[in-house]
Amino acid sequence: MFSIDAVDKSQMEAIWNVINNKAKPVGSLGKMEQCAAQLVTILSSSAKNSTEKPALIKPTIMVFCADHGINKDGVSTVPSEVTTVVAELLLKGTGAINIFCKQADIDLCVVDAGMKFPLPENEKMRNQRLGHGTQAMHEEMAMTPEQVMQGFGYAKTLVGEYAQSGCNVVGFGELGIGNTTSAAALMAAFTKRPAIECVGRGTGIDDETYQRKLALVEQALELHQGQLDDPITTLASVGGFEIVQICGGMLAAAEQKMVILVDGFIATSAALAAVAINPHCRDYMVFCHKSDEQGHQAMLAHLEGEGLLDLGLRLGEGTGVALALPILKSALAFYNDLAALN
Amino acid sequence: MFSIDAVDKSQMEAIWNVINNKAKPVGSLGKMEQCAAQLVTILSSSAKNSTEKPALIKPTIMVFCADHGINKDGVSTVPSEVTTVVAELLLKGTGAINIFCKQADIDLCVVDAGMKFPLPENEKMRNQRLGHGTQAMHEEMAMTPEQVMQGFGYAKTLVGEYAQSGCNVVGFGELGIGNTTSAAALMAAFTKRPAIECVGRGTGIDDETYQRKLALVEQALELHQGQLDDPITTLASVGGFEIVQICGGMLAAAEQKMVILVDGFIATSAALAAVAINPHCRDYMVFCHKSDEQGHQAMLAHLEGEGLLDLGLRLGEGTGVALALPILKSALAFYNDLAALN
Repeated sequence: MFSIDAVDKSQMEAIWNVINNKAKPVGSLGKMEQCAAQLVTILSSSAKNSTEKPALIKPTIMVFCADHGINKDGVSTVPSEVTTVVAELLLKGTGAINIFCKQADIDLCVVDAGMKFPLPENEKMRNQRLGHGTQAMHEEMAMTPEQVMQGFGYAKTLVGEYAQSGCNVVGFGELGIGNTTSAAALMAAFTKRPAIECVGRGTGIDDETYQRKLALVEQALELHQGQLDDPITTLASVGGFEIVQICGGMLAAAEQKMVILVDGFIATSAALAAVAINPHCRDYMVFCHKSDEQGHQAMLAHLEGEGLLDLGLRLGEGTGVALALPILKSALAFYNDLAALN
Repeated sequence: MFSIDAVDKSQMEAIWNVINNKAKPVGSLGKMEQCAAQLVTILSSSAKNSTEKPALIKPTIMVFCADHGINKDGVSTVPSEVTTVVAELLLKGTGAINIFCKQADIDLCVVDAGMKFPLPENEKMRNQRLGHGTQAMHEEMAMTPEQVMQGFGYAKTLVGEYAQSGCNVVGFGELGIGNTTSAAALMAAFTKRPAIECVGRGTGIDDETYQRKLALVEQALELHQGQLDDPITTLASVGGFEIVQICGGMLAAAEQKMVILVDGFIATSAALAAVAINPHCRDYMVFCHKSDEQGHQAMLAHLEGEGLLDLGLRLGEGTGVALALPILKSALAFYNDLAALN
C-alpha cells in the first residue's frame, strides 16, 4: 500500500559541511545540529522542497481518538467515556494540545478513529471510525486485519490531502483511555521485551491496577503469540484504532517525503509498527520528546532514536510534538541563516 | 545596592490547586507544571502583574561581551579578537542568538562590558565598558572591587530601563573568549569544589590546552585564596566584566521582581555570585538549559535548579534561553487557558 524511498543520504556530507562551516565552535549547538542535518536531509529528498531554503511548511498535528475494549477490565484510572469528554475539549479549543498548537502556530486535525461513545457529527472532527472501540485484546483479536487495512487507507487519504495542500511536516498524537496498555503490548511484540519492561503507570494507576494491567497484557501476548511475527496481524491482535491510523499516517507521510514528528509512548508504538512494515519510514521520523511513561526510552533505543525534549510529559495528544516544533524551526533557521566562516 | 524581596510563597498552594484542577491527569505535564507554578509565583509577586492573567511581557535577552586577560596564555581554541568578530555578527543580526531571538520574538540587547578590541560606536551596542578586558587572574586581581560595583551600577541602570518599559522577563547571555576559565574559577570558589571538577573543554580545547587551563585556574585560586570568602572580592579576583554585569543584572531583575532566565555555564557562574550576594535572588531564576560544559550540572545542583532543556548546547550568547522561551510561554498558556475540571 505504501511505496517509500529511503532519504537521499548522498547529501549528508555536504549538509554537515554547511553546519561545520558556520561561525560557531564545531558541535556547539549539540542536538540542534543533528536536528538540522536530519530535517535538511528529509526536505532535500523531496523535489518540491529542493529549490529553496529548507523550511517546515504548514506544520500540522493529527490527533487520533479511539477506545480500547480492554478498559472494561479497568486498566486506567478513568472509564472510556473520558476519551469522548477530552475529545470534546479539543473540539472546543480548550485542551492542552489546542493551547500548545496555538502558541507554536500549528494546525490541529482531530480524528475520531473509533471512540466508544462518538460525538455528534462536527465539522471540526474528521470521521474515520473503525468501530466503537476495539475488542478486549486479552480475550480476542482487538480488530480484524481488514480493519487495520481500512485504517491505513483512511490515514493515507488524510495525509495525502495535507501533503497536497503543501504541508511538509506532520505530527502524530492520540487520545484514548487504555491505550498505554495496547502500546505496551505492541512494544513487547516488536522489541521482544518481557511485558514487565513495557507496561507502565499510564495516567497514574495504583499498584493493584498496575498488576492487573500487567497480567492482562501478558494474557493478550500469550493468546496471540502465533500472530505476533507479522506487523499487520500484530496490530490487529493488540493494537488500537488510533494506533493503527497513526501507523498508516506515518507510512503515508514517509511515502510523501514529509517530516514525521513522533510524540510519546503510544505514537512511538505506532512508529515501531510502521518501521517493522517499512524500515525506510524511520528516516523521516523525529522523536520530539522522551515520555515519562516507563518503556518509552527502550522504544526509542529500539528505533535508534533519542527524544529531543525531556520534560516529564505523559499526557499524549501530541503535546510533546507541539512543544518541540519551535526548536525544530530554530534548528532550520540556524542552518539557513547563521553566518558562515567563509 | 539591591533590595530584593523573596517571592510571595503564600500563593503557592492556590497556584498548585489551579494546576491540579486542570482537565488532565495530575502531574502529566511534568516540568511544564513546575515552570508554570514558578512563573506564576514570580509574576503574582509584582503588583504590576497581579491584576491580569500572568504573562511574559517584552521578553529580552541581554548579551554581555567582554574579554579575559588570562587568554593571553591560551586557555581557548581562539584568540580574544574573536570576541569582537562574533560581537560584530550579533550587531549585523547573523549570529546564533539573533536567529533564535527572531524565531521566538525576543528583544536582543548587546552590551560591550569590556572587550579587548572595542568596535566603533554603534547604536546597536550599548557601551558599558569596564576596561579593555580583565587582567590575567592567575597573576593579579582580574579587576578592582570598584570595577565590580561599577559593573553592578551599569547593569542596574540597564535592567531598570527595561523594567520601566514594561518588560518583566530578562535572559542573560554572554560572549567572551576565555570566559569558561573565569566561570570555572568562580564555580570552585562558590561551590568549594576542586578545580578539576569545574574546568571543562569550553569551545573544544585539546588535552594540552585543558591541562594548562586547569593549572592556571588552580594558580588563580591559590593566588586569591584570601579573597574568596566574600562574593564581591571573589568576582574582582577571578570574575569577568561580562560575568560581573550579568550578576548585577540578575540582582537588579530580582529587585524589580522580573523573571530571570539563566543560560549556560557562564551565566550560571554569575547566578552563583548573585545568590551568594542575596539568596532571595534565586526565587526569580529559571534555568533554561543544561549545558554540555562539564561542571554546569554541579552548578545547577548547588543552586537546587534543573535545566529545562538538554540539547547539548555549549555556545553561550543566551542561546539556551532563547530556545527555552517558547516552552515557558506554553507553560503559562496552559496555566491560563487549559480547561478546568470544575
